[in-house]
Amino acid sequence: MAAGSTFGKNFRVTTFGESHGAALGCVIDGCPAGLPLSADDIIPYMKRRKPGQSEFTTKRNEDDEPEILSGVFEGRTTGTPIAIMIRNKDQHSKDYSEIASYYRPGHADYTFDEKFGFRDYRGGGRSSGRETAARVAAGAVAAKLLSELDISVHAYTRSIGPVEISGYDAGESNDLYMPEHEAYMKASEYIRELMEKKDSAGGVIECVASGVPAGIGDPVFDKLSACLAHAVMSIGAVKGFEIGDGFESAKRTGLENNDVFVSENGHVKKRTNHSGGILGGISDGSDIVFRCAVKPTASIAATQQTVNKDGDNIEISIRGRHDPVIVPRAVVVVEAMAAVTIADAILSDSCDRLEALRGR
Amino acid sequence: MAAGSTFGKNFRVTTFGESHGAALGCVIDGCPAGLPLSADDIIPYMKRRKPGQSEFTTKRNEDDEPEILSGVFEGRTTGTPIAIMIRNKDQHSKDYSEIASYYRPGHADYTFDEKFGFRDYRGGGRSSGRETAARVAAGAVAAKLLSELDISVHAYTRSIGPVEISGYDAGESNDLYMPEHEAYMKASEYIRELMEKKDSAGGVIECVASGVPAGIGDPVFDKLSACLAHAVMSIGAVKGFEIGDGFESAKRTGLENNDVFVSENGHVKKRTNHSGGILGGISDGSDIVFRCAVKPTASIAATQQTVNKDGDNIEISIRGRHDPVIVPRAVVVVEAMAAVTIADAILSDSCDRLEALRGR
Amino acid sequence: MAAGSTFGKNFRVTTFGESHGAALGCVIDGCPAGLPLSADDIIPYMKRRKPGQSEFTTKRNEDDEPEILSGVFEGRTTGTPIAIMIRNKDQHSKDYSEIASYYRPGHADYTFDEKFGFRDYRGGGRSSGRETAARVAAGAVAAKLLSELDISVHAYTRSIGPVEISGYDAGESNDLYMPEHEAYMKASEYIRELMEKKDSAGGVIECVASGVPAGIGDPVFDKLSACLAHAVMSIGAVKGFEIGDGFESAKRTGLENNDVFVSENGHVKKRTNHSGGILGGISDGSDIVFRCAVKPTASIAATQQTVNKDGDNIEISIRGRHDPVIVPRAVVVVEAMAAVTIADAILSDSCDRLEALRGR
Amino acid sequence: MAAGSTFGKNFRVTTFGESHGAALGCVIDGCPAGLPLSADDIIPYMKRRKPGQSEFTTKRNEDDEPEILSGVFEGRTTGTPIAIMIRNKDQHSKDYSEIASYYRPGHADYTFDEKFGFRDYRGGGRSSGRETAARVAAGAVAAKLLSELDISVHAYTRSIGPVEISGYDAGESNDLYMPEHEAYMKASEYIRELMEKKDSAGGVIECVASGVPAGIGDPVFDKLSACLAHAVMSIGAVKGFEIGDGFESAKRTGLENNDVFVSENGHVKKRTNHSGGILGGISDGSDIVFRCAVKPTASIAATQQTVNKDGDNIEISIRGRHDPVIVPRAVVVVEAMAAVTIADAILSDSCDRLEALRGR
Repeated sequence: MAAGSTFGKNFRVTTFGESHGAALGCVIDGCPAGLPLSADDIIPYMKRRKPGQSEFTTKRNEDDEPEILSGVFEGRTTGTPIAIMIRNKDQHSKDYSEIASYYRPGHADYTFDEKFGFRDYRGGGRSSGRETAARVAAGAVAAKLLSELDISVHAYTRSIGPVEISGYDAGESNDLYMPEHEAYMKASEYIRELMEKKDSAGGVIECVASGVPAGIGDPVFDKLSACLAHAVMSIGAVKGFEIGDGFESAKRTGLENNDVFVSENGHVKKRTNHSGGILGGISDGSDIVFRCAVKPTASIAATQQTVNKDGDNIEISIRGRHDPVIVPRAVVVVEAMAAVTIADAILSDSCDRLEALRGR
Repeated sequence: MAAGSTFGKNFRVTTFGESHGAALGCVIDGCPAGLPLSADDIIPYMKRRKPGQSEFTTKRNEDDEPEILSGVFEGRTTGTPIAIMIRNKDQHSKDYSEIASYYRPGHADYTFDEKFGFRDYRGGGRSSGRETAARVAAGAVAAKLLSELDISVHAYTRSIGPVEISGYDAGESNDLYMPEHEAYMKASEYIRELMEKKDSAGGVIECVASGVPAGIGDPVFDKLSACLAHAVMSIGAVKGFEIGDGFESAKRTGLENNDVFVSENGHVKKRTNHSGGILGGISDGSDIVFRCAVKPTASIAATQQTVNKDGDNIEISIRGRHDPVIVPRAVVVVEAMAAVTIADAILSDSCDRLEALRGR
Repeated sequence: MAAGSTFGKNFRVTTFGESHGAALGCVIDGCPAGLPLSADDIIPYMKRRKPGQSEFTTKRNEDDEPEILSGVFEGRTTGTPIAIMIRNKDQHSKDYSEIASYYRPGHADYTFDEKFGFRDYRGGGRSSGRETAARVAAGAVAAKLLSELDISVHAYTRSIGPVEISGYDAGESNDLYMPEHEAYMKASEYIRELMEKKDSAGGVIECVASGVPAGIGDPVFDKLSACLAHAVMSIGAVKGFEIGDGFESAKRTGLENNDVFVSENGHVKKRTNHSGGILGGISDGSDIVFRCAVKPTASIAATQQTVNKDGDNIEISIRGRHDPVIVPRAVVVVEAMAAVTIADAILSDSCDRLEALRGR
Repeated sequence: MAAGSTFGKNFRVTTFGESHGAALGCVIDGCPAGLPLSADDIIPYMKRRKPGQSEFTTKRNEDDEPEILSGVFEGRTTGTPIAIMIRNKDQHSKDYSEIASYYRPGHADYTFDEKFGFRDYRGGGRSSGRETAARVAAGAVAAKLLSELDISVHAYTRSIGPVEISGYDAGESNDLYMPEHEAYMKASEYIRELMEKKDSAGGVIECVASGVPAGIGDPVFDKLSACLAHAVMSIGAVKGFEIGDGFESAKRTGLENNDVFVSENGHVKKRTNHSGGILGGISDGSDIVFRCAVKPTASIAATQQTVNKDGDNIEISIRGRHDPVIVPRAVVVVEAMAAVTIADAILSDSCDRLEALRGR
């Protein structure tokens, strides 16, 4: 049984679709009624993960057009499932026919075969990065819902390979989504060098959610931090997740790491935010801050050794159109998954207290 | 709604209980029938998280005696829910009465109050580390099930504060569960220094699961790596998770990071294991290797600033019995959550192929 | 995988326990914080399903004492899981040893063996009617929650065998929970006759929930009527369920069956209630009314043919203490499951509209 | 929160779509890999619920063309989600504009408004019978899966209004799906009379599943009978459900109702099937037999009283194209939901025993 295509308990996102099938998309069940929504809310998100926009992304032309099939009437959500479909258009299935016969290193070809007995090998099928298009569409809806509650979610590139930003320049805009000009220039040069070597790069994405009120998230298994980890680690190529100071906090002492509470004008605040906005799995009113590690693109043109389906040791060089670094395109995917997770936690939070229930 | 006390889809663990209530425990639903099981399988796990065993753990005496209430008949599981209860015994509720009035930095006091309107403040209530006793009991059952399938899960301390092991010495046994003698000695000294300062330490725990066959895990949201992240990040004090090379892989290139497949005697193997045993969310037959970051103990005796429930800025010094580092006691908790997650993934995997279904 | 011991999505009830194991009980996850609760709220419900209270119930003495293990602090629920345990006391395991060797007609002995390979045969194990004690405990908590929202749930015996009430006399109180004296007298006589023949009776239980506001329930798969059917049909021995006019409505015409809406003082009302309080799966503000069919007790002392585990055709006469009719004791179980289902639907309903979410 | 558009635990069906939106459809997650599947497997099921095929069904022309969007590669399922979309074509939205202003008796107009604040009023929106098209598509896939396991599911009309079949004639084929010629003739006459009065009829559908092995289903809340009740009661217009002898069994005695086990050639059989193929919630190897009550069509042209959105008491006569009886078209919907439920139970059943797990 492989029924793992639904995420969330109350804002539930189910995705479907393969890289080269007829279409991919999502069904969102549980979105409250009355939210203004149209394709125009989704298209800007789709464009951010669209390839072909810079020298660092594949030249594939996936001009993804999301079609809302249900759940919206007269410009507002009805409370019933919102289905969004994206037709697959630019399918060069022939490019991929060769990979049917062998297992690409760093890819899921082998594990899919072991699990299912065979696989849709065209472009990676269900394990393709293209699967994230459906996540982004769902994330756009979640972000719209959050924006109505004055919550924003924003992700950006923190590092590419060894190049890390040292600050955050809100005015900086570039095709790596890296908010510091100097780091951007260095990272660009780093990627270009790898492209010449037919190699690829990875990086770290950081995400900040602002405006989440204190009290969101569940205390035990469904800590908000654990659900965010689940959501973000479920993105292909993500190999690590940390909230607040994360792995750095493991090196600190309690005195250094504890965030002091202070009372300001009758409101409880934290002087620092080592916790990343979550204490005991529940939001503490500070910004929620997390990072994730994205591995270097597995599809590279350099020669690699591997095994074919007959069990022979062979050498391959992966052709086709691949991103030398997927971090810039993954930024919006991370943002989307964070938005879905926070929307779900907020909807799940509405009956924590008897008095809230009484007041309805 | 805070119904986040159940983990897993097919091997489902529900926990209950507060630090100073009558009892805590778990209900395991979905464990296959026929598994030999008794309290003797659980007690060794409970002992590993028991305090009072070294100079580095609280002197509380929680001699946890798990009682199996249901689901076992004539020494074997019956396929019905296995309830395990652990009575709370050594309750010094008076020690904690003071904390009812203020918010301890680094703790969930404030966020619980924001979420629920009030809280069981005795020993942290549901947010206490004591909650993990129920996880360990469930993990012992999962580990027993996995052992019948020749799968082992083993966790240990990789670092304490800045002190990291540089290798793995299987013969080394110590109260920090740190498998290298030199690192153990340094880490002990490091903790002692912090204890003198009434401060605390954090660290990193590593976990290895061996024997998991290729093909386990779901391709999209419920990737095995994502479920492990969810499980481990749901442990209080865990702030980061990484699988395989994790954050290091973000700095590597594709050529460095891809694991080459090789054919050995008709079997597909990987020459390296940067992936940590999971590709595309599905186990690849190699060891599953992950790490998590544990923050320094939030309860420290050093003076800290904070806010009380009246909104006054105050100074506190947390009394009572607290671990200067919780890493050693958390090792078995990480192992337990990993065992539960892998058991769940294996049970969920049984109907991936039509032919498997036919053969039953 | 047999992980079907949890009911509900937001008010989640997990039960455990066998007839003759150490204990049975439940864990309720998702109950809002702040609900006044103690064992005194639960005991009256337990007493209603207690045997030994009339000539028509088994003489077993199960004085069930529910112990709240967690989730309640200073007399109020904390929002964390409420575990309730009931120790098994009056266990005559020897009485049941014989049934280990054969399959009782009308019981789950055979199907458990087919499913699990073996079974806890003592008193029926998990398939015993005793399993419902845990449901009643959970139902008492749900009913307490509903009472705070001015919702009441009330069940009673509508018929025993061929004897059906023709009205409802609120003043009538008897050990069959049959709210009409004449029907009660006839039903008593009917049961006595069957007891002499070592035979047993069935009946129909009716349940009415008052005060449920309009708008509760989900439109498609989780219609409130469908969830009630699931809940009630999951009680052992229940073989049928109908809402409103149920099977009678299948014989009516549209004009006869449609409930006319009328406006009274600005409120929308229905002139009749053929729908049983639910339209399109969502509560319509009228009383929710449903009935269920309870089969005659399968355990009878009369001689029956069956098969033993060696495959021999044999004759048996079931000894031990059994109810000649379980309907009276099942009344509170039906009420409990209805309360749990409605509580769950109400908690799931809190985020249907964006404006509700904004207002929190 | 109204996230009730998913059914099933392991064979998970999520539906979407309104009567007059762009499209409706379903996503099936958890279908095993390797099942031969194409649109040709689905079309015959769609045709059975298609209107316009007889004098007794609406003249709307919904020639539903299911398009498989994902999850099938080279004619076989891949183990990933199967999305099926059906475009809405014959939309006479103007026909329905009037009903935006008032609440149709017997419909969900009022309850949707109460729940969501507004509704897609065109043709009933999400509460339209058209929603079942997506269920039928999913049911066709489930039926295909079951057929590979030699399990068949077959539903038919048992009664229309007061006219009930007295036997089953497999050779009889008619537009009411009523398997007895004489009853069919009487029922036809009965419906024609009601059509003249602008009134409508209800009826009872019976369903038989053959070939389900013993041991399927869960013992407590997810009894196979309870899940079937949930599935079937979730179909709009269904008001009652009974398994085996159902409500009749409530009038019987234990001796009459118990099914005697007999040993035949080493196999355990039941001499009768009062239980309807399920004992203790688990299949017993006999045919699974259940019935459900379908209320008369709520949309009738006869004059009815009701309330408009301004709170005025008004008289209405529902125009547009409506079935005078929906039973014949609901037959395949019942069959579909039964197939989905049984497929889900079978997939959930695969790990009941340790030895089964070992053998994989």
